[in-house]
Amino acid sequence: MARKPLDYEELNENVKKTQYAVRGELYLRASELQKEGKKIIFTNVGNPHALGQKPLTFPRQVVALCQAPFLLDDPNVGLMFPADAIARAKHYLSMAPGGLGAYSDSRGIPGIRKEVADFIQRRDGYPSDPELIYLTDGASKGVMQMLNTIIRNERDGILVPVPQYPLYSAAIALFGGSLVPYYLEEEANWGLDFVNIRQTVSEARSKGITVRAMVIINPGNPTGQCLSEANIKELLQFCYHENLVLLADEVYQQNIYQDERPFISARKTVDEIYKVASIALSPNVPGQIFMGVMVNPPKPGDISYLKFSSESKSILESLRRRARMMTDGFNSCRNVVCNFTEGAMYSFPQIRLPPRAIEAAKRAGKAADVFYCLKLLEATGISTVPGSGFGQKEGVFHLRTTILPAEEDFPAIMSSFKNFNDSFMAQYEGYSRM
Amino acid sequence: MARKPLDYEELNENVKKTQYAVRGELYLRASELQKEGKKIIFTNVGNPHALGQKPLTFPRQVVALCQAPFLLDDPNVGLMFPADAIARAKHYLSMAPGGLGAYSDSRGIPGIRKEVADFIQRRDGYPSDPELIYLTDGASKGVMQMLNTIIRNERDGILVPVPQYPLYSAAIALFGGSLVPYYLEEEANWGLDFVNIRQTVSEARSKGITVRAMVIINPGNPTGQCLSEANIKELLQFCYHENLVLLADEVYQQNIYQDERPFISARKTVDEIYKVASIALSPNVPGQIFMGVMVNPPKPGDISYLKFSSESKSILESLRRRARMMTDGFNSCRNVVCNFTEGAMYSFPQIRLPPRAIEAAKRAGKAADVFYCLKLLEATGISTVPGSGFGQKEGVFHLRTTILPAEEDFPAIMSSFKNFNDSFMAQYEGYSRM
Repeated sequence: MARKPLDYEELNENVKKTQYAVRGELYLRASELQKEGKKIIFTNVGNPHALGQKPLTFPRQVVALCQAPFLLDDPNVGLMFPADAIARAKHYLSMAPGGLGAYSDSRGIPGIRKEVADFIQRRDGYPSDPELIYLTDGASKGVMQMLNTIIRNERDGILVPVPQYPLYSAAIALFGGSLVPYYLEEEANWGLDFVNIRQTVSEARSKGITVRAMVIINPGNPTGQCLSEANIKELLQFCYHENLVLLADEVYQQNIYQDERPFISARKTVDEIYKVASIALSPNVPGQIFMGVMVNPPKPGDISYLKFSSESKSILESLRRRARMMTDGFNSCRNVVCNFTEGAMYSFPQIRLPPRAIEAAKRAGKAADVFYCLKLLEATGISTVPGSGFGQKEGVFHLRTTILPAEEDFPAIMSSFKNFNDSFMAQYEGYSRM
Repeated sequence: MARKPLDYEELNENVKKTQYAVRGELYLRASELQKEGKKIIFTNVGNPHALGQKPLTFPRQVVALCQAPFLLDDPNVGLMFPADAIARAKHYLSMAPGGLGAYSDSRGIPGIRKEVADFIQRRDGYPSDPELIYLTDGASKGVMQMLNTIIRNERDGILVPVPQYPLYSAAIALFGGSLVPYYLEEEANWGLDFVNIRQTVSEARSKGITVRAMVIINPGNPTGQCLSEANIKELLQFCYHENLVLLADEVYQQNIYQDERPFISARKTVDEIYKVASIALSPNVPGQIFMGVMVNPPKPGDISYLKFSSESKSILESLRRRARMMTDGFNSCRNVVCNFTEGAMYSFPQIRLPPRAIEAAKRAGKAADVFYCLKLLEATGISTVPGSGFGQKEGVFHLRTTILPAEEDFPAIMSSFKNFNDSFMAQYEGYSRM
């Protein structure tokens, strides 16, 4: 019998090579356990609302009114919506002929791209051109459009940090390019070491790879660091001299949990992306309006200003406390060391696994960090992602957890982790190594 | 000076080869003219709300409440929203932990996939498995995920109808496969001719192409036909015997404008798509809820039933009248012949261009149908897409227009088209050919 065209053997090799750990073995096992009735704490994906974070009121009011514009003609609208949300909804509807049910320009609604440019100008202190701004359905789609445009064949290399968010390795595999990994320096708070990066580039070149672009993730995912200004300056000079496209993933720029190292952006223009963007006709329009509200939030004096800022502030303050509790919690555990989560939504502790644990993992046919994370999941319901899903140095093991569980659950979660880790270490270290 | 990595010469060849006529030269010229103050009638993209179609009330009420769930706790909610919209919003929110701000499962929310499966079961009369249903951000994303999974290299061929919606040619070019065009039979109301298709397949095979999949668009875009049941049966047998994946694009299944030839679906299961879908983490959640409401609309007896059905009915009845007015209008024009728009949202008249017009186009460096459509745009503001953007037989010319302008504007639009066409034909036919 002939093979069917969708049989595994007959599929695109690039699709088969693609890996995506944040929705991989650990996640699938956690979903099974949940179906069996076990309480699972999902810390595998940075998905704050799924873990109870409340939405900001003002953007939701604005988008609800845009979704149902007939509400604006209802005599009771003023009872349920503040005047500034009503005004803002009218403002966005005037920019979007046909409302939220119509395709917009493929690059996004011009008026909202203008609001994004104004935000960038305020942030960086010099002008930003709305014509160079493309709105996409989330950062993943934008990254994929760029990489698809850049990568020509398997000899085109993309510098990607290790550890990295696996979107990058997945997209590079899917488009048939070569991943050129550079290591972040855990001892230097996950910073960039250009001596190392230069050596990585020359090794890649000696293998016939044309290094075309460099990815940074700042604040880091899964590593949670904020890059220093000196590091970013060196990065820009490096990309300029080496003729690299800089892909700066800065989605967590508002999630900063310390004051010494504020977020600093890197910027680079794009070209020839319009055609790829236009195939999907339009990024989703409610998403564009949320973008407009977030880059142009209520201002002092506006009716919704106090509510919006106190909601935002309380989310960020709670995350800052959770970042601290999680880092401190990990660092109080045997054989666990963890850099402080300076930004983003992740903690990436290093787990120093005893040799016997590594051997037990090998016997079970698992990577050692996958073995540890599965045991953690079974014992505690805490669903994490093994460091091997993001990349790490040979023989060094990590896990990634979000800092997103509800703040009041933190003491119980950290103590449950500590109990598990204690007994895991006791089991695999044995008496002789105490 | 070295080339920059985003210089045109340095980009992915597949991206450069990609064409997308519905947002191409005609659209860009129309946008320019609009900026200069000319009134443009955009009939180039099937974008009903942008041309004044009102949204259905019930789905918008449900999604507005899901967007702003705090409205459900407002004592005034009953003044602005009917009880069934409130109940439905609670129903979807209970399926989506974290609400509309959280990523869902990469395949879509399980409860909504169940509602889609129930809809398919009602439609086709036999069971549908929700585990085989993937929700995507529009049909374009779904088509692209499938083609990306199927296409391995330039020797993999995909059978695509000509004329076709250019999503298919664009996606095949982007993923580096080979388009294997088969012609729809204009004389047989744009039906499938399997004698022809078999010959197309053997010619492709003799050139070393492995034909892997076949695309149909039913109801047709840009051609507006509904395939007959006999044609679809033959299609299924053909795909089975030739071992082809059938990609059935049936997005316009509710847009039917005659009763003789109802919409009949084709079905095929999918595999190994989960990983590709999971890279983007989640299709957009408000879109999923709209999908739920559309496959599971208010039922007789529900508060919103009458409003929902009268709104839906009045949209479809008006489109049916517009389909008729447009076809009749085109067929009353000199050198224009047009099949009736049985379904979808498009009319695809054939324009029999006089040899002098074809020569004039050649001198202007344009394809003859592009030449005609540009003249039409400049003279009348009617923005269409030339048939060459969809494919057509050598020496035969078409244009695609949507049937979406407001019904009351139809007499003026069709008479403006007729006047333009009369003077165009008079100019290029000259006295000798009258």
